[in-house]
Amino acid sequence: MTLDFELKTRDGRARRGRLTTAHGTIETPAFMPVGTAATVKAMMPEDVRATGAEILLCNTYHLMLRPGAERVAKLGGLHRFMNWPGPILTDSGGYQVMSLADLRKLSEEGVTFQSHLDGSKHLLTPERSIEIQNLLDATITMAFDECTPYPATEDQVATSMRLSMRWAKRSKEAFKQRPGYGLFGIVQGGIHPALREESAKALIEIGFDGYAVGGLAVGEGTELMLSTLEATEPFLPIDRPRYLMGVGKPSDLVGAVARGVDMFDCVLPTRSGRTAQAFTRAGTLNLRNARHAEHPGPLDPDCRCPACRSYSRAYLHHLTKAGEILGAMLLTRHNLTYYQDLMAEMRAAIEAGSFSAFVEAFRSASAAVVAEP
Amino acid sequence: MTLDFELKTRDGRARRGRLTTAHGTIETPAFMPVGTAATVKAMMPEDVRATGAEILLCNTYHLMLRPGAERVAKLGGLHRFMNWPGPILTDSGGYQVMSLADLRKLSEEGVTFQSHLDGSKHLLTPERSIEIQNLLDATITMAFDECTPYPATEDQVATSMRLSMRWAKRSKEAFKQRPGYGLFGIVQGGIHPALREESAKALIEIGFDGYAVGGLAVGEGTELMLSTLEATEPFLPIDRPRYLMGVGKPSDLVGAVARGVDMFDCVLPTRSGRTAQAFTRAGTLNLRNARHAEHPGPLDPDCRCPACRSYSRAYLHHLTKAGEILGAMLLTRHNLTYYQDLMAEMRAAIEAGSFSAFVEAFRSASAAVVAEP
Repeated sequence: MTLDFELKTRDGRARRGRLTTAHGTIETPAFMPVGTAATVKAMMPEDVRATGAEILLCNTYHLMLRPGAERVAKLGGLHRFMNWPGPILTDSGGYQVMSLADLRKLSEEGVTFQSHLDGSKHLLTPERSIEIQNLLDATITMAFDECTPYPATEDQVATSMRLSMRWAKRSKEAFKQRPGYGLFGIVQGGIHPALREESAKALIEIGFDGYAVGGLAVGEGTELMLSTLEATEPFLPIDRPRYLMGVGKPSDLVGAVARGVDMFDCVLPTRSGRTAQAFTRAGTLNLRNARHAEHPGPLDPDCRCPACRSYSRAYLHHLTKAGEILGAMLLTRHNLTYYQDLMAEMRAAIEAGSFSAFVEAFRSASAAVVAEP
Repeated sequence: MTLDFELKTRDGRARRGRLTTAHGTIETPAFMPVGTAATVKAMMPEDVRATGAEILLCNTYHLMLRPGAERVAKLGGLHRFMNWPGPILTDSGGYQVMSLADLRKLSEEGVTFQSHLDGSKHLLTPERSIEIQNLLDATITMAFDECTPYPATEDQVATSMRLSMRWAKRSKEAFKQRPGYGLFGIVQGGIHPALREESAKALIEIGFDGYAVGGLAVGEGTELMLSTLEATEPFLPIDRPRYLMGVGKPSDLVGAVARGVDMFDCVLPTRSGRTAQAFTRAGTLNLRNARHAEHPGPLDPDCRCPACRSYSRAYLHHLTKAGEILGAMLLTRHNLTYYQDLMAEMRAAIEAGSFSAFVEAFRSASAAVVAEP
């Protein structure tokens, strides 16, 4: 193992840890903002860091097409390219390639697909995915997998999962180990506990620096997601970080931390920031709503972010109505701050052995509010 | 006079001064970034300040329609609304209303027009324009004028200018003087020196805190603009600031400072930042140009801005090609820094009595470069 993971304490299934990498440490449970095209949209990287983020996720699919992995390598790697010296996790490209539908073709070898940008043809295999992530200089590389479509029959899910496990083995073989860098495997198996168990065991047999749970948050709903997670977690190694991919809403993060997850990524806080949605301790606000037009107070009086310290809801309403870039900038910063503060509160609660009280309080607060249209 | 203006030194016609207002001082010659809708597009106000800007221009026309002057007043005024505690100059709305063409109707009383947002009808008069600017809490209020169309016959220009002079008198009568706040008149008269003289004298007779030169940079070309300015300047009071409205390119600023102008505003640096154009000491760069795709160096090695300190041209090229907001953010910041540094260099040269040498050097550098497509 080339990534050091210290499990500091547990509170129930919730875990408080620290991941040490070549590019810095990550306190877990951690939320990774998404920097799809080598930028967390509408944010300066130092401002992303100031929200509390310690690691970003970037997308292999987008970066291999534009600007290209070889070009990023020539320019000194992704950290230097995007001015983020901290850890970066790259996905494998598998998820995005699968969502191309008619534009891609699957085989044992890998996936051939056409670029959504210019229609050019590409082949993505476990070996090429790992090579690209290495060219990008990813701190954490993800194994190449097939994200199983949902819904699917149990047979389809099993076939897909077993292909992903063969690809995981090829990913491991292709990965060049370096100190402080790591490779994560991805547990598949849909909503079927037996397949999840089989997948987890296959990955452990191969051996990874961390274990992701993939193929969730694809339409199965919160309940099935959490129950699948609950059924999967006992088969994951205690001493390695667990990463729930593409999740999620604040309540999903709380539910998943309670079920032993250490890492998350999701576009929700950044995308919401560009569509006038703000997460607050008193619920989700739609800043385009006319009821904010003359509101002199902040989004959230308890928030430390610049949007809350220096601007009224009325001003944010004005910016979003006028389509001003500053609206996206301020709301993204707020939402990322909200997410990072939520993670910090969960870490503190786990350390204090009061995580179940935290969950209780979080649920009561959430139940008391209704998101506005 | 309620605005203190100290003319510190002169070098030829170029002037080095300091304007003191209720919201802070402005070292002149000064460039005012444009914050049309109560935001300098793609910029946090503290970052605008960090470029060296000491005063912003905001647009009465846009703000009266959205969010509305009464609403801004209720929220504590424009400074608080947009988190810019420094001086703000508002235009009178005249220029933008005139550009509505078929949607407006002119009379002695003022201008009736339809909103470009929702078609609603509005009447803008000198009295209402001054009232709106007062509601916005403008540090510097502009007299309401008709921006004479170009081209126009000398008779048309004279008629239009004389209407503006009657409106200037009504603007002065409507303006409530407060310490540290001021009202500027606007010299009109097209490209006709005799009309410019008549206009300047009419304004001086009324008495203003500062004198703007309006109706230029509307299509007459650089040469006519500078010659008109040169013919107008001798009729402007020495002890009051002069403001050339809506100008301009870096070379225009240098040419106008040489002709005795103290203040400028223009959307060029901000708009260019959103269309992948960067002003540098070595000419104007189009970041979409493929020749930047693998360029590891900064936009301008001599620039102090974050875009130049921490990012390669290759990265900025990538952001602009991908349509990423961060591209607009970084290039706007760079361009505003370039403009403010140019002003600071001019101020230093005037103080040192070396302004003509500065102009010479600036022209040689400009002549050596060709803007790229």
